[in-house]
Amino acid sequence: MADADGPEPAPSFSLEEAQAILAAQPFSALLGARVTELAGGVATLEIDIDERHRQQYGVLHGGVLAYLADNAITFAAGSVLGATVLTGGMTIDYLRTARAGVLRARAHVVHADSRHAVATAEVTAEVPDGEVRRCAVAQGTVLVSSRG
Amino acid sequence: MADADGPEPAPSFSLEEAQAILAAQPFSALLGARVTELAGGVATLEIDIDERHRQQYGVLHGGVLAYLADNAITFAAGSVLGATVLTGGMTIDYLRTARAGVLRARAHVVHADSRHAVATAEVTAEVPDGEVRRCAVAQGTVLVSSRG
Amino acid sequence: MADADGPEPAPSFSLEEAQAILAAQPFSALLGARVTELAGGVATLEIDIDERHRQQYGVLHGGVLAYLADNAITFAAGSVLGATVLTGGMTIDYLRTARAGVLRARAHVVHADSRHAVATAEVTAEVPDGEVRRCAVAQGTVLVSSRG
Amino acid sequence: MADADGPEPAPSFSLEEAQAILAAQPFSALLGARVTELAGGVATLEIDIDERHRQQYGVLHGGVLAYLADNAITFAAGSVLGATVLTGGMTIDYLRTARAGVLRARAHVVHADSRHAVATAEVTAEVPDGEVRRCAVAQGTVLVSSRG
Repeated sequence: MADADGPEPAPSFSLEEAQAILAAQPFSALLGARVTELAGGVATLEIDIDERHRQQYGVLHGGVLAYLADNAITFAAGSVLGATVLTGGMTIDYLRTARAGVLRARAHVVHADSRHAVATAEVTAEVPDGEVRRCAVAQGTVLVSSRG
Repeated sequence: MADADGPEPAPSFSLEEAQAILAAQPFSALLGARVTELAGGVATLEIDIDERHRQQYGVLHGGVLAYLADNAITFAAGSVLGATVLTGGMTIDYLRTARAGVLRARAHVVHADSRHAVATAEVTAEVPDGEVRRCAVAQGTVLVSSRG
Repeated sequence: MADADGPEPAPSFSLEEAQAILAAQPFSALLGARVTELAGGVATLEIDIDERHRQQYGVLHGGVLAYLADNAITFAAGSVLGATVLTGGMTIDYLRTARAGVLRARAHVVHADSRHAVATAEVTAEVPDGEVRRCAVAQGTVLVSSRG
Repeated sequence: MADADGPEPAPSFSLEEAQAILAAQPFSALLGARVTELAGGVATLEIDIDERHRQQYGVLHGGVLAYLADNAITFAAGSVLGATVLTGGMTIDYLRTARAGVLRARAHVVHADSRHAVATAEVTAEVPDGEVRRCAVAQGTVLVSSRG
């Protein structure tokens, strides 16, 4: 099911610039998020799961999954649209949860034009025994900001 | 980004049974839809685009894309959960449109348990010059029906 | 929970113009849809439920609900943004279904700026015994088209 | 557009029990969330906006809005379904943002049956000058957990 949209463009900013943007987000620092991949239309964010990320049953709070998917979608879209973007909205379906390990959201852009981009994301947890568990799928829309 | 959920199960019903279900849907007959693939967790539905599917600018109406994505998600989930399912909800992002050719929605299940399944879908158009254009991405939730 | 966004603006086009747009959509004619309300940020579309709208169990096909919600959202947004808009995406949750009566989708804009609008919609069925049943809730994003 | 679903039931748990559940969520404590309303099918959660909730431009991070909408939807659904529920998924559209004040998510259930509930939510910010600004709209699905 190939798409005729052509090759992915070079990203608008580097992995190092993405790391600097993330470091400038107090909320991302509060959650301990890091960006580990940034390419034209692709971004991966990670969190080492610990106590602060949990809900009352000792598993990840859904809000952590939503945050990570949302931010990965925004970075993936920003890599194509440029850094000054606004996330318009997101849908997330929760599949499984996790208690520990590395939570990873990988987003990739499926469409971009001059006004907006649409990206999908998969959130997985690499749990301590090495299993990789699919925790959520998401898709979102990112708009070019008039602020830039 | 492999998942540890294991191999796809055998489908709950055959392609021929799926075709009979679709044929029993007056709305699907009205739109001229056909099911061309049915496997454990995967379904493809197609429509030959013609005048009835268009909006005022001569391109596909978004409602046709929504119908086809929704139905593909329901069949993919039904192939895992069994035939008596209810679609709980769906999100669709429209990417590009088309005037003619074959519209195709392919859905695959990303998670299933005893109560529900989640599937994602991609809707593409194979337009007359042979180009395959990504028209929409969708994800949806399907619930096991108490009716069965 | 009042909002400080101020009064609703006058609509960009009249109910009669909305009816003409709908009449120019072959897919809407195929489904028998009509627009019965058009104001600044609000639109209502209706369908008299009959055989063509059903699935294999004799109730409304989800695709009909999705179509009607999508189109009501687009008209509501268009009433604020102007007629040349593109629907970016939509989420619909299916609640209950119906076999007969009048299906009605009413959408209203909850936010609009120079680039896009967001609207929510409720789809109800007024069934033959007079009961009004909530069938679906939806929300969607509509973008200003560069085509205009 | 009345619904014939009848009067709202008494909640499955009290506001005090909801506060205890929230207090047992480390992630909610990290964000400083409180629950201020819990009735049959309705829940309101609040956060006093401060530095930790912001992104790089000094405004609320979208992840905070997503967290608060998600949790309000889960509590509203839990008030009808019982406390042992799992949120299946959520859609959020971001409308406006805020730098300071009280962020408030109010969710109410629009449908519930023995298996699941659907709720919609509105997230507003009461900013320091007293303006109440609509920041996001959301809708989500909550499933009865087999854990209970």
